[in-house]
Amino acid sequence: MENIASYISTHQQRFIDELIELLKIPSVSADPAYAEDVLNTAEAVRAALQQAGCDHTEICETPGYPIVYGEKIIDTNLPTVLVYGHYDVQPPDPVDLWDSPPFEPVIKKTELHPEGAIFARGACDDKGQMYMHVKALEYMIANHALPCNVKFMIEGEEEVGSESLGWFLERNREKLANDVILISDTGMISKDTPSITTGLRGLSYVEVEVTGPNRDLHSGLYGGAVANPINILSKMIAQLQDENNHITIPGFYDKVQELSRAERDEMAKAPFSLEGYKKALDIEDVYGEAGFVTNERNSIRPTLDVNGIWGGYTGEGAKTVIPGKAYAKISMRLVPDQNWEEITQLFKSHFEAIAPKGVRVKVKPHHGGFPYVTPIDSDGYRAASKAYEQTFGKTPIPQRSGGSIPIVSLFEKELKSKTILMGFGLDSDAIHSPNEHYGVWNYLKGIETIPYFYKYFTEIKQG
Amino acid sequence: MENIASYISTHQQRFIDELIELLKIPSVSADPAYAEDVLNTAEAVRAALQQAGCDHTEICETPGYPIVYGEKIIDTNLPTVLVYGHYDVQPPDPVDLWDSPPFEPVIKKTELHPEGAIFARGACDDKGQMYMHVKALEYMIANHALPCNVKFMIEGEEEVGSESLGWFLERNREKLANDVILISDTGMISKDTPSITTGLRGLSYVEVEVTGPNRDLHSGLYGGAVANPINILSKMIAQLQDENNHITIPGFYDKVQELSRAERDEMAKAPFSLEGYKKALDIEDVYGEAGFVTNERNSIRPTLDVNGIWGGYTGEGAKTVIPGKAYAKISMRLVPDQNWEEITQLFKSHFEAIAPKGVRVKVKPHHGGFPYVTPIDSDGYRAASKAYEQTFGKTPIPQRSGGSIPIVSLFEKELKSKTILMGFGLDSDAIHSPNEHYGVWNYLKGIETIPYFYKYFTEIKQG
Repeated sequence: MENIASYISTHQQRFIDELIELLKIPSVSADPAYAEDVLNTAEAVRAALQQAGCDHTEICETPGYPIVYGEKIIDTNLPTVLVYGHYDVQPPDPVDLWDSPPFEPVIKKTELHPEGAIFARGACDDKGQMYMHVKALEYMIANHALPCNVKFMIEGEEEVGSESLGWFLERNREKLANDVILISDTGMISKDTPSITTGLRGLSYVEVEVTGPNRDLHSGLYGGAVANPINILSKMIAQLQDENNHITIPGFYDKVQELSRAERDEMAKAPFSLEGYKKALDIEDVYGEAGFVTNERNSIRPTLDVNGIWGGYTGEGAKTVIPGKAYAKISMRLVPDQNWEEITQLFKSHFEAIAPKGVRVKVKPHHGGFPYVTPIDSDGYRAASKAYEQTFGKTPIPQRSGGSIPIVSLFEKELKSKTILMGFGLDSDAIHSPNEHYGVWNYLKGIETIPYFYKYFTEIKQG
Repeated sequence: MENIASYISTHQQRFIDELIELLKIPSVSADPAYAEDVLNTAEAVRAALQQAGCDHTEICETPGYPIVYGEKIIDTNLPTVLVYGHYDVQPPDPVDLWDSPPFEPVIKKTELHPEGAIFARGACDDKGQMYMHVKALEYMIANHALPCNVKFMIEGEEEVGSESLGWFLERNREKLANDVILISDTGMISKDTPSITTGLRGLSYVEVEVTGPNRDLHSGLYGGAVANPINILSKMIAQLQDENNHITIPGFYDKVQELSRAERDEMAKAPFSLEGYKKALDIEDVYGEAGFVTNERNSIRPTLDVNGIWGGYTGEGAKTVIPGKAYAKISMRLVPDQNWEEITQLFKSHFEAIAPKGVRVKVKPHHGGFPYVTPIDSDGYRAASKAYEQTFGKTPIPQRSGGSIPIVSLFEKELKSKTILMGFGLDSDAIHSPNEHYGVWNYLKGIETIPYFYKYFTEIKQG
C-alpha cells in the first residue's frame, strides 16, 4: 500500500470533482418534493460503485427509497467487509442562512481547513464520508491491493429513520453476510487527534398536536376564558424537565446505564476546551443536566429537545388570535440500555396525562433507534486503530458520541456482526446546519486510511 | 323616520351588493404584499361616502395608510356626530380552513342566520359594520331625515395598532370637532338581546426572540449540552402564569380595578350558557384565572395569550436540529386602570430577567392601547339605548367586552369626547378566524337603528 499517497495525489482533483457532482443532486429524503432527486442519487451511487470496480451492483427496491448494493468478491474463504452509508441528506432550511446555495457546492478555505473545504448539504453527512469508501475501493482494485471481499449497502432514508432498512435486512441476510460492518458517518476529535466512535445514543422522535377550540378565536373576546393551545403546549413542554434539567417522564431513567467514576475520569481525558466550545457557539454559558459536564451531557446522558414548534400567527405584523391548534416535534436521545419503543410509549402516556381538560392531545411517534456501544477489544476496532496509527501516526481515542445511528443496533440484531465507526468529520462541519462542509484534507485522509483497515482486518482474521 | 323600514326593503339588494364589492378587495394591513389593495379600499370608501351624500370627502395622507374623511354639515349650531370605522382587515390565514375564499364573498344560510350571512374576511370586522353607517347616512339625506351634522373618519391601520391615527388626530382637532363619537366595531349578546358595549380591554402586544447558539445544531451532538431556544422559550412562557393562571409579571395587577360583588352580580345577569359555550367551541372545559367565571375572565380581568410561536424545523418529516432561534408573538389584554406602556415595560423587564444565561432575549413592543369604560348616563348612551328600544323593542344591556379598540381612549384624550359603541355583530361571526361572516339581518338592522341614534341624540342635546 506504499503507493496509496501518490495514487491519491495523482487523482485527487477527480476524487473531488466526482463528489461535487454527487452533492449537486438535492437528495432530501424528508421532503417528497425531492423524490426524483433522491432516486437519481441512488443511480449515481450505483454507477460510481460499478466504475470503482464492483463486479455486481444493483438498485434494490424497498417499500421506501431504494438501497444501492454493490460487491466485489475475490475469495469466499477470505473475510468480508460490509460498508454502510447513506445517499440522502437533511433538509437545507433555513436556506437563507447559507452563504452559498446548499446544492451548488463550492470549495472555500477556512481557518481549520487551509487546504479548502467543500460547502454543500451532505458534503460530510454522509455523501462525502460515504464516497471515501468508493474511492478507497477504486484504489485497492486498481492496484491489486484489495485483501478481502467487500460489499456496499448505501441507503436513502437515514435522515428520516431508515424505515425500509429493517425490511431489507430481514430479506437479504444471506446476501449481506459479513465479518464486520464499516461506517463513516461520525466525526473525530480534531485533525490531529484521531478518534473512533464506540458509543452512540438511541433516539425517540415524536410529533405532538395540542387542540383547543374548534377554530381560531379572537384573543380579546375569548382571551382568558379558554385554554390557548400555544400557552398549554409551552407549559407541557416546560413540565418535561425539572429545574435540574432532569427529564420528568416517569420511568424515563429506569434503564439508563450509570457510568462509574473511573469511566467518567477516563472520558474527561479527551481534550476539550469549555471556553473554545462557548466561543464557537457564541453562547455565554452551557446549559444542561445538573451533576454532569458538557462531554457527559452530550454522550452518556439521555436528553429531550424540541426540534420544531409552530402555532398561531407567524407572519408579518400582529394578529390577535387564539389558534385552534399548536404543534411540536420533540426528540429524545437515549443511552444504553434504554429501549426507544418503551421510551416513546412512556412519553406518549405522560404527555397525554399532563394535558389539562381544556385541550385534546395527539402524540404521533415518528421513528427511533436503540443506543449502541462497540467493544474496543474486537477485531474490527483493533484493525481500525492500527489503520489510524499508520496514517495519523497516533493511536485514536475511543469516544462515545451523542449522535444516533439507529441502524447500528439493527445490524447487530439482523446480521449478527459488529460495526466499526471510522468517522473523519469534525464538529465544526455544521452537519444538519446551514453551511455544512467537509474538509478536503479529511476527505483525502479518509480515502488513505480506509485501505489499511482492510489490510489489518484481514491479517487479524487470518491471524 | 317611519319610512326607513320600507326604504331598506326597497334598496336592500343594492346595500348587500355594494358591501360585497367592498369585501372583494383584500385590504390586509398587516402584510405589505396587500399595500395596493389597502389603498384601493380607501378610495372605494371615499367614493361611497360621496355617493351617500357627503358634501365633502377626501383621502387624508398619514405616515402610514391614509384615513378617509367625509362630512355633511347642515347647521353649525346643531350637534355633530363623528363616525369612526376601519377599512382594513385581519390577515385571512389559515386560508386552508376557509370553506370559501376569504375575498370572494358568498351568502349562505346558517342556523343562526336563516336570512343568510355574508362570508368573507372583513364581513363583520369592520367593513360590514362600518358600511351600515354609510347606508344610514344615504337614507337620512335622501329622505331629509338627517337631524344634525355628521363626520366620517375611516382608517386603514386598526388591525395593526392604528399607528398613524394619533398623528392625524393631533393635527386635525378642529376638523374632527364633535359632540359624540359613534363606532360599530363590537358585538351584541344575541339577535334578540341587544346590548351596548360600555367597556373595552386595553392591549399590549409584543414579539419575543430567544437566541441560543449562533447556528442550528445537530441535536445528537449538542443535545443536552446547550440551551435549546425552543425549550427555553416554552419554559419562559410557562413561567408567565402560575398554577391559578394568575400572571406572574411583578406589578402586573397593581392598577387593576377590582369590581365589587354587587357589580359582578349585575354582570352575572346577562344571559349565558356555559354548556352552549363549550359546545360551540367543542371543548370539554373552559380554562382561566381561578376565582372568576367565564364572563368575568373575558371582560373584567387582564390576560396573557401567545398569538403565535415558531422555531426550528416545521416542515414535513423529521429533522434532528437544535435551532439557533425561537420566536413568539404575545398579547396581554388590559383592564382599567392598567397603562399599556407601563405593562409593556414590565413585561420586557420580567421576560429579560427570567432568561437563563445560555440564551439572549429580545423583546420588541408591537403596539398597544388603553382600556376604556363608557358612562351609561351620558347623552350618547341614552340616545343609543332609545334607538335600540325603537328597533328591537327592548332596552339594550350594557356590557363590558374583552376586545380592545385602543383608539377609544385616544379619542377621549385628543378630541375630548365620549365614544358610543353600537355593535351589531355576534360572537359566532368568527371575526379574526376562518369563515368570518356577518348576518344580513344584523347588517340591515344596524342600518335601521343608526338613524334613530341621530334623532334621539339631537333631541337630547337640543334639550
